[in-house]
Amino acid sequence: MKVKLASNYGFCFGVKRAINIAEQHQNSATMGPLIHNQKEIDRLQSDYKVGLYENLEDVKPNDTVIIRTHGIPKNDLKTLKSKEAKVINATCPFVTTPQQIVKKMSTDGYSILIFGDENHPEVKGVKSYSEDDVHVILEPTELDNIDFKYDKIATVAQTTRKKEKYLEIVNKLILKNKEVRVFNTICDATFENQDAARELSQEVDIMIVIGGKNSSNTKQLLSIAQENCPQSYLIEDEKELNTKWFENKTLCGVTAGASTPDWIIKKVINQIEQY
Amino acid sequence: MKVKLASNYGFCFGVKRAINIAEQHQNSATMGPLIHNQKEIDRLQSDYKVGLYENLEDVKPNDTVIIRTHGIPKNDLKTLKSKEAKVINATCPFVTTPQQIVKKMSTDGYSILIFGDENHPEVKGVKSYSEDDVHVILEPTELDNIDFKYDKIATVAQTTRKKEKYLEIVNKLILKNKEVRVFNTICDATFENQDAARELSQEVDIMIVIGGKNSSNTKQLLSIAQENCPQSYLIEDEKELNTKWFENKTLCGVTAGASTPDWIIKKVINQIEQY
Repeated sequence: MKVKLASNYGFCFGVKRAINIAEQHQNSATMGPLIHNQKEIDRLQSDYKVGLYENLEDVKPNDTVIIRTHGIPKNDLKTLKSKEAKVINATCPFVTTPQQIVKKMSTDGYSILIFGDENHPEVKGVKSYSEDDVHVILEPTELDNIDFKYDKIATVAQTTRKKEKYLEIVNKLILKNKEVRVFNTICDATFENQDAARELSQEVDIMIVIGGKNSSNTKQLLSIAQENCPQSYLIEDEKELNTKWFENKTLCGVTAGASTPDWIIKKVINQIEQY
Repeated sequence: MKVKLASNYGFCFGVKRAINIAEQHQNSATMGPLIHNQKEIDRLQSDYKVGLYENLEDVKPNDTVIIRTHGIPKNDLKTLKSKEAKVINATCPFVTTPQQIVKKMSTDGYSILIFGDENHPEVKGVKSYSEDDVHVILEPTELDNIDFKYDKIATVAQTTRKKEKYLEIVNKLILKNKEVRVFNTICDATFENQDAARELSQEVDIMIVIGGKNSSNTKQLLSIAQENCPQSYLIEDEKELNTKWFENKTLCGVTAGASTPDWIIKKVINQIEQY
């Protein structure tokens, strides 16, 4: 069976970078799981002795702590440093940017609006950098209930949000405020994977999507693939492959969710190529 | 005949202010016609000895020169000052704002985008305040041909432009640039007159629109009035009123273009009330 890989798939730049950083710091531990993939966390533990803290309280002096791609709130970072832990910052540079923007804008006299999910760790971190008036919303209608302290608004977005919705929010802001400073902090990685899956699914007769069964971005890839290629399957690893799927097929497309490591993808491809 | 005046009509804030300034400076002259209404210019000439310069070259030392509401290019202002003329600045504050924004942003490392008509005096003035990269467009598609020098863009709009189109342009900018600093410099006056004409035309049985037959904003008011009230007429002054129009009518709505002085409107209303 011939296999064709999507032009974009799997880990984004920030996750690849974080794993690379973890591999370079044996005997360290990450503050919370580094990615949503237990197999990869197990590999870092067994091959590189990279452990896992669940709470700030677990950290002891001289411990080496790795900050995850989506960052942590400013005060948590302060707490870690006050414990005299060695802090290795693997926050994605695309997340550090909105953190720094929020810090600068809030000290420059802007009200801050963050487009994102208030409960997401990335947004909690970004929000914590505001020194003054800050608001988080997911829908343009929520603007109606916000009373901004200033008539100059600076706005950033959670990296994984949709641009169309961000523009809706920004447009509403512009009509009501003298100055709106728009920082486009949305990262293309998620959408590049989706576009590539859409494209590939049009030219193959079977699609394999590799990723967690509970991962929302993986499920989205599956649903996109199924639109063009009804024979699309979601698997977590090569053991879930079923030879029957490949009967009378000639070309198999492969893509993977944002938390799927390359070594799992390679095992799946090797298996399919043997059919 | 009963008369009802639109809730917004005629001169905007900036024009009222400029005429007030002219009245306070007898024996001065404006740089170009103060407004597009010959009767008002004649009145300022006869009652306040306010004359008219057509060119910068006409200005002599110690002359008192009034700058019009839409401002003049920075270098023209410099030339006037170098001639030792006394410069009275009647530039509308809503036009001074984008001038100052363009100046500040261009020295702060932003590329400047102006939404407006390159040949309009207001835009020529605003553009002249840029110290660096500056572009003027009327349509979002024109962005495709612009190669901005910086990835930080600051944008302002000509005061009389439509917001919807400005948002289209801004949205396109946001998708392509890291930071877009949007200054909403559009003035509501034009649109407030239009909204008021629309509202009033629904409750009267005849509408009189007062203004220049060649004035585009007056013609727009007429067309809006006619949508609801087919018996809508455009006149330049009370002499053009026709008693026949008012037969069997009970309530007459009145509005006026942005260059129509109050004293002309009053004469028209007095005349109609006598029918």
